[in-house]
Amino acid sequence: MVSINGERLLGDLRALRAMGATGTGVVRPAFSEMDMTARRWLADRYSDAGLTAQIDGVGNVLGRSQNPGPALLVGSHSDTQPTGGWLDGALGVIYGLEVARALAEDPATRDLAVDAISWQDEESRFYGCMGSRSFCGDFTAEAEADLHDKDGVALADALAQAGLSDTPRLAAGDHDYIGFLEAHIEQGPHLEQDGRRIGIVQSIVGLGGMVFIFSGQQNHAGTTMMAGRKDAATALYALANAINEEFPKVAGDRSVWTMGRAVLTPGAPSIVPGHGELELQFRDVDPAVLDRFEAVAHRLVAEINSRGGATVEAKPSRVRIPPAHMDPGFQEHLSRAAETHAPGNWNAMPSGAFHDAGVVCGVMPCAMLFIPSIGGISHDFAEDSHDDDIVLGCQVLASGAASIVIAAAGRQ
Amino acid sequence: MVSINGERLLGDLRALRAMGATGTGVVRPAFSEMDMTARRWLADRYSDAGLTAQIDGVGNVLGRSQNPGPALLVGSHSDTQPTGGWLDGALGVIYGLEVARALAEDPATRDLAVDAISWQDEESRFYGCMGSRSFCGDFTAEAEADLHDKDGVALADALAQAGLSDTPRLAAGDHDYIGFLEAHIEQGPHLEQDGRRIGIVQSIVGLGGMVFIFSGQQNHAGTTMMAGRKDAATALYALANAINEEFPKVAGDRSVWTMGRAVLTPGAPSIVPGHGELELQFRDVDPAVLDRFEAVAHRLVAEINSRGGATVEAKPSRVRIPPAHMDPGFQEHLSRAAETHAPGNWNAMPSGAFHDAGVVCGVMPCAMLFIPSIGGISHDFAEDSHDDDIVLGCQVLASGAASIVIAAAGRQ
Repeated sequence: MVSINGERLLGDLRALRAMGATGTGVVRPAFSEMDMTARRWLADRYSDAGLTAQIDGVGNVLGRSQNPGPALLVGSHSDTQPTGGWLDGALGVIYGLEVARALAEDPATRDLAVDAISWQDEESRFYGCMGSRSFCGDFTAEAEADLHDKDGVALADALAQAGLSDTPRLAAGDHDYIGFLEAHIEQGPHLEQDGRRIGIVQSIVGLGGMVFIFSGQQNHAGTTMMAGRKDAATALYALANAINEEFPKVAGDRSVWTMGRAVLTPGAPSIVPGHGELELQFRDVDPAVLDRFEAVAHRLVAEINSRGGATVEAKPSRVRIPPAHMDPGFQEHLSRAAETHAPGNWNAMPSGAFHDAGVVCGVMPCAMLFIPSIGGISHDFAEDSHDDDIVLGCQVLASGAASIVIAAAGRQ
Repeated sequence: MVSINGERLLGDLRALRAMGATGTGVVRPAFSEMDMTARRWLADRYSDAGLTAQIDGVGNVLGRSQNPGPALLVGSHSDTQPTGGWLDGALGVIYGLEVARALAEDPATRDLAVDAISWQDEESRFYGCMGSRSFCGDFTAEAEADLHDKDGVALADALAQAGLSDTPRLAAGDHDYIGFLEAHIEQGPHLEQDGRRIGIVQSIVGLGGMVFIFSGQQNHAGTTMMAGRKDAATALYALANAINEEFPKVAGDRSVWTMGRAVLTPGAPSIVPGHGELELQFRDVDPAVLDRFEAVAHRLVAEINSRGGATVEAKPSRVRIPPAHMDPGFQEHLSRAAETHAPGNWNAMPSGAFHDAGVVCGVMPCAMLFIPSIGGISHDFAEDSHDDDIVLGCQVLASGAASIVIAAAGRQ
């Protein structure tokens, strides 16, 4: 049975961490100098592992197996949040490298085709999951035109700075792929709370959102009687609270919803506010639940509007992201590997956060593996996982990957 | 019967308006160059009217009658909001000047002692009602120390700039006063809605306030389950909505309450906020109502804290201002004058906004007279009143003032 090298894995993860290390965290946003340094370093590691390395025109790093036949793609993303944790996508990227190396070192698996990949800009400096979307034909010229980061830097300038302006871009159709495996830290508390060391992802939750715009009449808080008010704050509090009271009645077991942004204008304690904005975001693996949330929100909006105070208009805040389902066969391979290496210590589970696999599963079968996040913390300098969980996760992924490629070859 | 000069009154109001005029509004905050120009102009008008004029050490302008005996003080404030209306306190200041002139011109009233005044900084550039508070002994050295405006200008520097650093300050005890009359625009819609042209103020509402601090746990909006959340936003919406549902059950007829300021941190749509602040302000003429509001708020806070999500702490947002009651005898004099000049066209009413008379009534009898605000608008460039209402209000005030001083002389 294929066996990974835990020390080598941890060594490479720490070497990658050093590129952008800031305290216990990492600052390595897409296309930054540190990000491109890390991508060139990774291409060298792919070459050392016997893979044919290339950096494509949006910054994706691919290490292609020289073995014939359809290949299994394994990896994640090495860019970070503006102030990110050291593992996040880096974990899955180094897993991809280590899986390719481990398979190549074992006579039983050395002929299996496993490509390793690091996608670009999963963390949305310019465009969320830009690298995997570009690979899947989902990054159109229209979407790309005039893209800027929050500081006003143009994507075209960032590409030129990285020396990528004239570099060809990878496409899923360039090669015959069996599918894609992505490992990631959980970014939530469930594995730790349940005492499990491995999570096999069933689905990545879908996401919907609405923005509520409140229009009232700004007025003096002392001289304007309650009956005559059109108070944007009153309507906002009423709608937000009603959503929190009504959503549980139509929610799924693991539905979440959040109203973390609320703004009142002018926002002074002695002025009846004339304008307000409230943003709602909701997630579930079942699109029917997302539909029900949207319907309930519209019903509550109509109720607020019938009260005669400030009025409210509901608008979708973003294109809805549908739930993404992982391949059942791939899940079965990973589950068997998890049961081998961590018997009774793994869980099937949804992913509450979005990932590149949620894009790639539109063009090929995908699966994801999680390892526990200490305290459930992520997107924070404090993000961490235990070394033995890091090593175990890679071992499960390597065994699962070998078993998937062997099965695919058997079907041909 | 004493008769005011409407054209002279309107002419002086327009002359004062020109000092700081900006569009249809006025920008003349306390101690600004325009404010001090206006105060020196007013002192000259007081002198022209035969009054002994002085500007005191905090900028109050007093025109003292040369007639013997206790005097009735009549006036308001000539400083404005940062972007204020043209009438606001300026109306009552020019009323004071015109009342003194009109009484001096009538043989029947020329011996009555009426002093005219313009208080400083009613609008809280440095300290709300600073001028009247200083006059009443309610502006302590402790309150004065280290006072700055919102741009960081020190009061001491503003006083030096105005040439007032070494100027003595007026005190209520310097002279024997009968009381204080203040006229003002209503700043609300009631007179206009009720078709009345004069309001006689019974009480100035009291004001209480609380700040609610919400403490939760900031988290990822996708991976943190609802049951495990300590969401500051959820607790804030629940408390604010409960206050809006419960306060009407203990409110008075004209109680008002406002929660115009709410802040969530970090305030992003995809992050469960860990911190929130909500500010509540409530007003009523009955202190028992203010007490009930505070008790209900504390009960609702305890309910939120029993839910197990984010916790909330309630703190008083400012010293409570008790309701201020106008002198019943003065109200009677003003009501008779109103019935004489506007029979059936006046109302007794509370003041929902605070005024210098609410300070001065702590040391002497006070009364207030309102004229209608067009559309109820104030603290806005659009603030306005009809000329005939402006003239009528001054006539009622002059008749009422004469009658008060005559009655006081009769009692001596």
